[in-house]
Formats: sequence, C-alpha cells, structure tokens
Amino acid sequence: MTKITMIGAGNLASHLSIALKCAGHEIVQVYSRTEKSADLLASQLNCPYTIDKNSIAQSDIALIAVKDDAIEEVEKYIDFPKAHTSGTKDLECLTTNTSGVFYPLQTFTKSSEIEFKNIPICIESNDPLLNKLLIDLGNSISDKVYAINSQQRRQLHIAAVIACNFSNHMYRFSEEICTAYSIPFEILHPLILETANKIQSISPSKAQTGPAQRGDDLTIQKHISLLENNSELQEIYKTLSDSIKKYS
Amino acid sequence: MTKITMIGAGNLASHLSIALKCAGHEIVQVYSRTEKSADLLASQLNCPYTIDKNSIAQSDIALIAVKDDAIEEVEKYIDFPKAHTSGTKDLECLTTNTSGVFYPLQTFTKSSEIEFKNIPICIESNDPLLNKLLIDLGNSISDKVYAINSQQRRQLHIAAVIACNFSNHMYRFSEEICTAYSIPFEILHPLILETANKIQSISPSKAQTGPAQRGDDLTIQKHISLLENNSELQEIYKTLSDSIKKYS
Repeated sequence: MTKITMIGAGNLASHLSIALKCAGHEIVQVYSRTEKSADLLASQLNCPYTIDKNSIAQSDIALIAVKDDAIEEVEKYIDFPKAHTSGTKDLECLTTNTSGVFYPLQTFTKSSEIEFKNIPICIESNDPLLNKLLIDLGNSISDKVYAINSQQRRQLHIAAVIACNFSNHMYRFSEEICTAYSIPFEILHPLILETANKIQSISPSKAQTGPAQRGDDLTIQKHISLLENNSELQEIYKTLSDSIKKYS
Repeated sequence: MTKITMIGAGNLASHLSIALKCAGHEIVQVYSRTEKSADLLASQLNCPYTIDKNSIAQSDIALIAVKDDAIEEVEKYIDFPKAHTSGTKDLECLTTNTSGVFYPLQTFTKSSEIEFKNIPICIESNDPLLNKLLIDLGNSISDKVYAINSQQRRQLHIAAVIACNFSNHMYRFSEEICTAYSIPFEILHPLILETANKIQSISPSKAQTGPAQRGDDLTIQKHISLLENNSELQEIYKTLSDSIKKYS
C-alpha cells in the first residue's frame, strides 16, 4: 500500500486517484487550485483536500495530474518523491533527484467510465527506488506497464496524435460526406471498428486495402473528381493516396 | 428460401455464399473463370460448378461477386435477375431491367472469419420485386440492411476509403515512429481501439481531442520539428493539424 498525494482534481486526476484507491492505496490528500473540484474529488475519495500549495501533505509520492503548463509552478512546492502524468513533458521539468513520470496513454473523457486494466502506463524515473515504486503502482491498476524514457515519450505522443486524432479527423470527413448525401453514418461504424480491430493482431502495413493500395488509379481519379466541391478534402485525398501508393 | 447462382469464387463470393447457405438458401451453382477456386468453393457448398459462361445455371438470382472490371464481361451471359456486389460500380453496369446491387460494406480478408450479422448490406434495384428479394436476402444474413442508391454508394465508397484506408495509413505512420524509437507498437493498440469505439456512440466532431483541437500551437510546432527526418509525414502532420484547427 502506497500513500499518495494527488495534485490536481481534473479528469485524469479523478479517474487515476479512484483507480488507485480501489487498488488498495491511500490517497492522503487532494490538492487543486479550484476549491470546488478539490472538494468534489476529496469527498469521493473520503480524504482531506487543500488549495494552498504550502500545505501540500507529505506522502510516499505526489502524483501531479495538472495541465502541462501548470506542472512547473506546483512542483516547486513538493519536496518529496513526485511524478507527473504528462505525455509531452520531459522528466527534467521536475527539479529534484527523486522524480518520475507516470503517464497513462489514453484519452480521458469526463463522464465515461475508464477500465484502467487495459490502459498502458509509461514509467520513467531518475531514481531506482522511485522507479520501482512507480512500476508497482502501475501494475496495481494496469496489466500494461512500460519503461519509456523522455525521448521515446515525445515520439510516442506524436504517434498517438497521428494514430488517434488524425484518424478521428478522417472519421469526421466521412461523416460529413454521409450527411451531405443522406447516408446514415452508422453504416460505416462496423468498418471503422474492424479497421481498428485488425491492427490489434496484424501490422497496419499488412492490413491495408483499398484503391491506393491496389494501385487502382481509375477509382482514385473518380473519387478526386467527385470531391470537387470540397477542395480541402480533395487535396488530402490526393496526398494520402499518393502516400499509400509509395508504401504499397 | 431463395435459389442463388454464385458468380465468382474469391473472398467475397466464398464468405457470402457460405453465409447464405447457412441462412437456409440454396446455392444452385458456382461459376468462376478459375477451375481450382470454383471447385474449392463448390465442394464447400456441396453444389455443382461451371467455368463456362454459357452454362451458367438459371435460378431466382445470380449474385455477381467478381472483380469490378470483370462484371460487365460476365453479366451479359445472365438473362435472369442478377445483382452485383460492388461498392464502386453503378447499377447501370448491369444491362437488364431486373438488376440490382447487393453490396456488403466490409473488408474481407481471406482467412479471417466474418460474422455477417453486423455487416451493413446496401441494396438497390430497378425492379420492385427484385428489390424485395434482395432486402429479404440481406435480412436473412445481416441485421443492417440499407437502401442506398448509386449516387449514395459512390459517395459511401469515398467515405469508406477515408475512414478506413486513410486511418489505417495513420496507424502505419505511428507504427513506423514506434519502430524507429524501439517502442512496442502494441502500446498504442488500446488508444486506437478506443478512438474507433468512441465514435460508435458520439459524433467524431465531438470526440476530437489532442493539440490541434485544443489550439496548442506550441506542441504542434514541437512535433513538426521532431519529425524533421521524415518530410512527407511532417507535411501530412501540418496539413491535418491545420484542418482540425479549422473545424474546432
């Protein structure tokens, strides 16, 4: 059982501290700049809270789950082992010799329930003991704990943006087309899910299908001309088809 | 029970005819140009086959599941109700007054098992009776049967390429990054699945997250400069981030 001070009371802080409490750890205190959210989370956790940086309670570890640009401001007030939970910030943004990163790689939406078991947790630390503590903490809530250093985490964040935000943008374009032609978007749901499912077991480079992969230039040309009233999407269609062809 | 002549013996023809047989229909014959595949499928279905276009057996309907550019060549030999299964070809590529389209919207990979129940089937016909037959046929193997005309189907195919082939290309880029930095790609699997899962219940326009959606130009710039040794991906990152920002 680890004693944890939770810094932050937003989406990630809430999901994470509840999962940690359920796993048998003790949340000794919640800190947040906003009294309302500090109070709400602390009452869910049945623990005290503070909105005063100078009153942050000591524990085995402070988990810093605040916005990226607020990390450096609050971490100065923590003089015991600490780890941030950011995908973009380097380990070095924490200024002591007992610092780490505890980064759960998932999108957290406020209301939706999160099953931590399947969420990968990326661990890094400048201290062997803290490293072990973070790994144990990770293993207590997730089946997937990885050692990922700051350089890897930077690249991982780019990869996540590309795989997820950019894919979602593709979904959005396709929904737009469906709406314009009175096609229910749900008709694409199974195909979208199957595409994401497929790469859970085979490499995306082997899973590719479609006109660009087949080198079917006739269909590509037809599609591009059918997109004539959306020049932005037309450009993106061209660029991505060319790119797929280069790889196929 | 419908009597069906199966034209083609490839991936789609195989999956489709087996599903139809399991649903209680009778496959009266398999036609294929290739004796080996005709024989294989016919033996699975326990029915006769032919490789002679002039010997195609009459039935309630011929389902044409051959490559797009082979449809017009074979359909001339069929003088009873027929439907093709293509996402790209118009209804008009079939030359009789009793023609239709029976298009299952899914990627079919040879070995992998297909559960037709959740695969949307798009129906179109120039004949009311054939239309009803196709809808009934669709309902017998799938829970999701849609009336989709040729113009809609053309657009739906574009939407499917964008939502699926282009998303898969994003997965491929992200795998490339992972490989380059010795990060196991499986670390992104849950996030990719969650992204596809999310839009099953909420619109992609509401599901978007990430630096471009937040207008976090600092992170976008950082990512672009970190991609300096891959100018193609750098361009795509820029283009798609700009596009997301326009919508957010």
